[in-house]
Amino acid sequence: MSRLRLGVMGGTFDPIHNGHLVAASEVAASLRLDEVLFVPTGQPWQKAGVTPTSDRYLMAEIATAANPRFKVSTVDIDRAGPTYTVDTLRDLAARFPTADLFFITGADAVTSIAGWKDASDLWGLAKFVAVTRPGHALDLPEAPEGAIQVIEIPALAISSTDIRKRVAEGKPIWYLVPDGIVQFIAKHGLYGSKSESVGPESESFGGVK
Amino acid sequence: MSRLRLGVMGGTFDPIHNGHLVAASEVAASLRLDEVLFVPTGQPWQKAGVTPTSDRYLMAEIATAANPRFKVSTVDIDRAGPTYTVDTLRDLAARFPTADLFFITGADAVTSIAGWKDASDLWGLAKFVAVTRPGHALDLPEAPEGAIQVIEIPALAISSTDIRKRVAEGKPIWYLVPDGIVQFIAKHGLYGSKSESVGPESESFGGVK
Repeated sequence: MSRLRLGVMGGTFDPIHNGHLVAASEVAASLRLDEVLFVPTGQPWQKAGVTPTSDRYLMAEIATAANPRFKVSTVDIDRAGPTYTVDTLRDLAARFPTADLFFITGADAVTSIAGWKDASDLWGLAKFVAVTRPGHALDLPEAPEGAIQVIEIPALAISSTDIRKRVAEGKPIWYLVPDGIVQFIAKHGLYGSKSESVGPESESFGGVK
Repeated sequence: MSRLRLGVMGGTFDPIHNGHLVAASEVAASLRLDEVLFVPTGQPWQKAGVTPTSDRYLMAEIATAANPRFKVSTVDIDRAGPTYTVDTLRDLAARFPTADLFFITGADAVTSIAGWKDASDLWGLAKFVAVTRPGHALDLPEAPEGAIQVIEIPALAISSTDIRKRVAEGKPIWYLVPDGIVQFIAKHGLYGSKSESVGPESESFGGVK
């Protein structure tokens, strides 16, 4: 029996957006992964003022609900303290002992991998997949041969930071995030959104019902 | 009574994708448009081998169906011969005599506006809105004051050409186009897609049901 090929996509997901989903979809197709686990961070490392874990977790569930190969894992939420990748991978390796793990991360993040907690243990736990935009040069860190693969994904330069800023400024985020996430953000008033701007009676532009 | 502010988004839409939808949403919010009309070209100007008009029209309807302020117009499909913007705008001006028209186009296209058919008539028919990526410099053509507005949209560098290429290569297009468009392309075998790769029994990755 062949081993399960399991993608692992960690992130703050504040909020999850179409760029995350395109990257997961592309890596999964390219590396023939069986599933991709989205793993929202617990208390994010070096990030203050983050949206409650429960909201970030639910948005990940909503955004991935329609895709049978996308799942959400709470291993980082269930663990106390800040999230380190090595802990994520150790927990998932224990939970999925017959799986090969593929940790999907941004090209920028992977360049700093030598500074991550227990860096030398990382290579034995997973293969690393650095996603980058086409034509974007990448300085790979020193790593065992084959430990890091680079995959080019369509240039979807969406960022969670930009999404939060757009919401705070009253700008639309339709088509940058799944429809369910637009609605979740408005319903729960996240990122300074005005909750009265949602609902069937709304006069606001772009009110996808 | 104030005049209807009507966005006009012409294009081949082969296929329509999230980049088109984000641009329309952003321009509409920024300029407080009442509606945006998506206008698929009939026989495209200088483009051969294009997907049948009926498919491109239906994809535009499907992609905009959930947004109450997005509509599709067949003026360019109903008119015989190649599509010129001046004809689109004359037809729409006749159909919506109390509307102010805002023609939304790419920043690259607008630079060549002087070469368009009956170019000098264009300024009286509509305001022109050039959408561009943040930080992307733009050489505006000579035009009456206020005739062209530039609006920066989030950097969604999706192109229909790339979507067609991805489909032909068997790569996923989920989250680059609305879910209904993924399904329409597979169902009708557009762009060389394999129709057996869709449906609930599918084993292909990313089969959003």
